[in-house]
Amino acid sequence: MALANEHYLELKAGYLFPEIGRRVRAFAGANPAARIIRLGIGDVTRPLPPAVIDAFHRAVSELGDAKTFMGYGPEQGYDFLIGALVEKAYAPLGIRLKPSEIFISDGSKCDTANILDIFALDNTVAIGDPVYPVYNDTNVMVGRSGEAGAAGGSRRIVYMPCTEANGFFPAFPKEKADIVYLCFPNNPTGAVATKAQLAGWVDWALACDAVILFDAAYEAFIAEDGYPHSIYEIEGAKRCAIEFRSFSKTAGFTGVRCALTVVPEELAAKTRTGEKVPLNPLWNRRQTTKFNGVSYPVQRAAAAVYTDAGWKQTKTIIDYYMENARLIREGLAAAGLALHGGVNAPYIWLRTPGGLSSWDFFDKLLTECNVVGTPGSGFGPSGEGFFRLSAFGNRDDVAEAVDRIRKNLR
Amino acid sequence: MALANEHYLELKAGYLFPEIGRRVRAFAGANPAARIIRLGIGDVTRPLPPAVIDAFHRAVSELGDAKTFMGYGPEQGYDFLIGALVEKAYAPLGIRLKPSEIFISDGSKCDTANILDIFALDNTVAIGDPVYPVYNDTNVMVGRSGEAGAAGGSRRIVYMPCTEANGFFPAFPKEKADIVYLCFPNNPTGAVATKAQLAGWVDWALACDAVILFDAAYEAFIAEDGYPHSIYEIEGAKRCAIEFRSFSKTAGFTGVRCALTVVPEELAAKTRTGEKVPLNPLWNRRQTTKFNGVSYPVQRAAAAVYTDAGWKQTKTIIDYYMENARLIREGLAAAGLALHGGVNAPYIWLRTPGGLSSWDFFDKLLTECNVVGTPGSGFGPSGEGFFRLSAFGNRDDVAEAVDRIRKNLR
Repeated sequence: MALANEHYLELKAGYLFPEIGRRVRAFAGANPAARIIRLGIGDVTRPLPPAVIDAFHRAVSELGDAKTFMGYGPEQGYDFLIGALVEKAYAPLGIRLKPSEIFISDGSKCDTANILDIFALDNTVAIGDPVYPVYNDTNVMVGRSGEAGAAGGSRRIVYMPCTEANGFFPAFPKEKADIVYLCFPNNPTGAVATKAQLAGWVDWALACDAVILFDAAYEAFIAEDGYPHSIYEIEGAKRCAIEFRSFSKTAGFTGVRCALTVVPEELAAKTRTGEKVPLNPLWNRRQTTKFNGVSYPVQRAAAAVYTDAGWKQTKTIIDYYMENARLIREGLAAAGLALHGGVNAPYIWLRTPGGLSSWDFFDKLLTECNVVGTPGSGFGPSGEGFFRLSAFGNRDDVAEAVDRIRKNLR
Repeated sequence: MALANEHYLELKAGYLFPEIGRRVRAFAGANPAARIIRLGIGDVTRPLPPAVIDAFHRAVSELGDAKTFMGYGPEQGYDFLIGALVEKAYAPLGIRLKPSEIFISDGSKCDTANILDIFALDNTVAIGDPVYPVYNDTNVMVGRSGEAGAAGGSRRIVYMPCTEANGFFPAFPKEKADIVYLCFPNNPTGAVATKAQLAGWVDWALACDAVILFDAAYEAFIAEDGYPHSIYEIEGAKRCAIEFRSFSKTAGFTGVRCALTVVPEELAAKTRTGEKVPLNPLWNRRQTTKFNGVSYPVQRAAAAVYTDAGWKQTKTIIDYYMENARLIREGLAAAGLALHGGVNAPYIWLRTPGGLSSWDFFDKLLTECNVVGTPGSGFGPSGEGFFRLSAFGNRDDVAEAVDRIRKNLR
């Protein structure tokens, strides 16, 4: 008799974004005349840069010609893309990576979820609260939530509150924690970590042999100098951290799908008997066995992001979104809202007015302003009373959304 | 202290195809003048059909224009592709699928690996021997091999020998088995299942509440009438089977990456207390949480395979490969080799001459004929003494490889 993975039954009702989609569809269905502006799911809206489109087309054409056809690529990604990342994304930060330390994938969602494969089930993980739901839900799925004792689960998730009081930067967990998720610039709070803050976490991880899963999906949106774009800017981080980066937000690849994970060769976990197990070969084995590499034309398109023309065009788009962020911040602050983020991150994290719950404010904005945001409580209990707006909209939509919200709150 | 997943340490040395790659690179490095012909890894060589290339280009262009830009798509895949599969791939077989039963992914390797997520760890799985290594290795990775008692593993993999004696069609396992992998047309043996044979497995699965994981990646290569292209051609299969299909071999997508998994709504597993758990919502939750959908232009390219022009062009390529298969079969049979497959499958499974081991024959072909094949023992112990040749080469290469082997064996 085939047994289902009962840990799935411990998951809270629908994953956040599908639930938002459901409410928006219901409202739109009942109000077909409403012009809904979506600043919710954090999806990009600008077209791909011309240099990227050109490279994409060229690679597609190669696949149509027997002389240039490409079949299976390396599961880890093509050298041309990995090389571009080594030289253009990491070397300028003073970070030297070996090509074998970079793994190309089809998304950071997949990578931050799949990375759990190479760790033993009985590790305790620490995650922020609020947090990108994937970190939490994927741990529930493998049995770390412990809600269903009968199914062999036991509580191995530690939540680290990120609140206005601590500036949305988590304190070290008091409980034992073996794997810690950090995301800076942060989704959803828009907080950015200083070098000193990250160095504190690296020291903590090295001291207790923990592994940091560092999600740097939003590093390209750091606008101010002095903040680390990679955890490997911190001394010792190669011995304790895996880093995730993505082309999704950086270069508009949410529908194209390309990301990368860095697993340094120095990084090791342990066996139960205390022997060191380097994690790079484990992740390599995971990827070669369970994954078949990213679409060749997609990798060519991604590599074009790091050409001179491609990066200039990409940076223009990033600046466009960050100008949106400024409009939202300044517009809503003028309307009396308390807000955070939006300076070195494409997310604005605002306190809901009048003590409304996050979902009540969601429904209010949807029904009264026809603006879609993301309820903070969807990211964890400490997100209750907060609300996330994304800067990834079109300029006119962003301006109109700010205007509608201001008028509504007046 | 972060603990590694020690089950990875139970995996046998390097995954088959990387090991082949290593030996070929070593030989090529030492013999730069040798013109090596690769009939090993089963990678396609023909360019994508023009209709597919056109659709691919059109979709890339859409991403370069703000008016037609596409961001995140549905994790399950776009309606236009799912609809094409419902109408063009399944309806002609007399199979009615709901769109919600089809999940688009970036490859059958991923899907056949990831599907284990939704099942409890203590299921016993039955797999063929020889078999596509991914089925075995992914079960070892989650702890079903039981080699390392200390790490909590216990032996929960049952091997079903597929030999000349049983026509490479496995008998029902004598031991309890909850999940069974079947692959027809088979990789590596090239065997194809009759409706009666599949019906036997469906009856068996329904009788013992087992789930069949049916890998139909090679269904498009069935050349003779009367063989089932989908397990859902069998009465009752929707209540016991998940089916995997791929564009990789069918339409030359090995480097483009697109596949699909069918999880019928009728299909359920159970909880430990015996309640039914429908698997479709579990897989949907898995995919929405751990996956972000397939690249939009790739899905447009895949949908073009099922246009009238696209399918005609695709079929021409399939016929080309099957003509290769005929050349290999007839050429090597004339050289006195005993062989199977290659009629309704793109693989020829031959008995090594003179009682050579599979790897010895691999080395002999590589060094003496400069032809790369795949050692049968790499697919499992019952593959020892066999060897797989793929029909996916260029015609001239295939003809020359056959010629070289015939001369060598003379």
